[in-house]
Amino acid sequence: MKKRLRAIRRRLNEKRINCLIVTKPANVTYTTGFLGDDSWAVITKGRVYLLTDSRYIEQAQKECSSCSIIQRTDSLAQAVAKLVKKLKSVQAVTLEKSTSLADFEAVKKSVKARLKSVANIIESVRSSKDSSEVAAIKAAGSIAAQALKQTRRYIKPGITENELAGMLDFQIRKLGATNSFDTIVAFGPNASRPHHQPGKRKLKQKDTVLMDFGVKYKGYCCDITRCFAVGRPTTFYKRAYDVVQQAQAAAIKTVKARVEISRVDAAAREVIDKNGLPVYGHGTGHGLGLEIHELPFLKAESKGKLKAGQVITIEPGVYIPGKLGVRMEDDILVTKTGYRILTRNCPHLPLLPLR
Amino acid sequence: MKKRLRAIRRRLNEKRINCLIVTKPANVTYTTGFLGDDSWAVITKGRVYLLTDSRYIEQAQKECSSCSIIQRTDSLAQAVAKLVKKLKSVQAVTLEKSTSLADFEAVKKSVKARLKSVANIIESVRSSKDSSEVAAIKAAGSIAAQALKQTRRYIKPGITENELAGMLDFQIRKLGATNSFDTIVAFGPNASRPHHQPGKRKLKQKDTVLMDFGVKYKGYCCDITRCFAVGRPTTFYKRAYDVVQQAQAAAIKTVKARVEISRVDAAAREVIDKNGLPVYGHGTGHGLGLEIHELPFLKAESKGKLKAGQVITIEPGVYIPGKLGVRMEDDILVTKTGYRILTRNCPHLPLLPLR
Repeated sequence: MKKRLRAIRRRLNEKRINCLIVTKPANVTYTTGFLGDDSWAVITKGRVYLLTDSRYIEQAQKECSSCSIIQRTDSLAQAVAKLVKKLKSVQAVTLEKSTSLADFEAVKKSVKARLKSVANIIESVRSSKDSSEVAAIKAAGSIAAQALKQTRRYIKPGITENELAGMLDFQIRKLGATNSFDTIVAFGPNASRPHHQPGKRKLKQKDTVLMDFGVKYKGYCCDITRCFAVGRPTTFYKRAYDVVQQAQAAAIKTVKARVEISRVDAAAREVIDKNGLPVYGHGTGHGLGLEIHELPFLKAESKGKLKAGQVITIEPGVYIPGKLGVRMEDDILVTKTGYRILTRNCPHLPLLPLR
Repeated sequence: MKKRLRAIRRRLNEKRINCLIVTKPANVTYTTGFLGDDSWAVITKGRVYLLTDSRYIEQAQKECSSCSIIQRTDSLAQAVAKLVKKLKSVQAVTLEKSTSLADFEAVKKSVKARLKSVANIIESVRSSKDSSEVAAIKAAGSIAAQALKQTRRYIKPGITENELAGMLDFQIRKLGATNSFDTIVAFGPNASRPHHQPGKRKLKQKDTVLMDFGVKYKGYCCDITRCFAVGRPTTFYKRAYDVVQQAQAAAIKTVKARVEISRVDAAAREVIDKNGLPVYGHGTGHGLGLEIHELPFLKAESKGKLKAGQVITIEPGVYIPGKLGVRMEDDILVTKTGYRILTRNCPHLPLLPLR
């Protein structure tokens, strides 16, 4: 926590910010340890304050050992105003650019100080993970892997997408974690919609399955996609599967600190294009940590380079509406010399024997 | 949809807004029918546009029959700019106040038109539900009730909070719905934290249970809390339970269109205070619909009156740290002549026989 705050204060100093109001929940967690909602943090030169309410006081006292907890009884904006009034050295107050216009205006109305805004101060520090964060993402990945293994025996003809999603989520809960986003389970051609919502469709004797799911553990997310066939898949499905696997491997191979992000993105797309399959419309991946989607974003137009400590997904896909969808997604730690796959122990189940 | 848009356009006319950029996901759903993410709507005098990307095109074509779907290939702000350029009659563009500063500035940078902002246009129309919306919330409530009934037989000494939460969620999924928020299951004194996160604690022979959970079905949420004892509860628990039940009934009895919101809030608090128990720190309830928390908010300091068609929770509680927590929550439709409890068929299980 001390190291994080040092890095954040260094950036604040560079920008001559002496009082930052942290409104984004993941940034509040990052700077205070607090995992609840409806709370803001205030970072000054010497201190971090957590502004929360009666519902969260017990939790805050447990989770936030290094910051001053203030129990607010009125709005967050008014709580900020009261605190700023006490902090005599504060002439200007800076809000995060992720703050809503409404909150910005409410703070403006109550606080007697100049108001400024700034983007991505904490996000850019957060984007390089320390060892405890990498361990938490890896732990989330292990829970996901275990949950998938335990769900495997339920993947039989007749189960619906809803039931399979629910069974996976149940295993995740039993293991003491929650979902990092709503689980996607898509059978057959349903998988051509990258964000398909599970429905009543039943698994057939010969069918294909896409599962895109994640675990949140101690605040940290993982994000995994696995595809497989039940019974013998068609030649076309097998080809799409192989090509996506090659595309993912090609992109992962390029991962290393200081590599252009757009190069990683292009590596996956090239393989799919070269093989005459349609190139996916979404990004090749995204950072993840306290949020399921965070810096950096891997797209064709992305500027900038990968940094050591970043954890990113690599998730190319092939989608043919009415026919099939295949996507493969793993979470990758960027290192100085290359990469480490944090979700390696999550099984690929390319061909599932019928029971 | 037509009726909604008429009501929205009436308000836009009053405020002399001829182009509203809708950025809040629930508002996008309300005005277009679209249930996906990362998309904005643009409302002009004659049309509603949905700006989405390739991932959601199939879904949008299914869900949005009455609006023009635009597939964007660059950022949302740039897509807005392109559209506004085509709409020659638009001189000023208005964004919702829930928009982030970052998005506001991005639109400002790309769009060649004056920029304004406005609060709660769509939220205030959304706050009074039409019959199809009430039916959807009621359907979500029925799924929740059924899921709770099916979970009942798993509530036995030895089960953990995590397992019970997971089993409930599984039943919800099996019934074709998802959670409207992360299920809270708290055993014994854990329930004194209104937002307790389920953990490894096991249910004992004599114990108490709080379950706060919700279902999202066809986009609409319900929100229910039930408390009960396994084995014979202590006299103190029974008393707290009775008082909370009375408090909830007292508040529900006041519900009617044109009643002061603060009066409903006070009705519940008075009962608890009069009985010498500590009055809860959270609100007495909140609106719900496409969002789990939306207008109106029922607090002591709330101004304004209830309106016919609003759906609100009534959820008073008693919390004694280290001892117990009891909360009771139902979803109530406000009518001209009184109210209708939409979650009536969700069972109260005050004393569960041991198995």
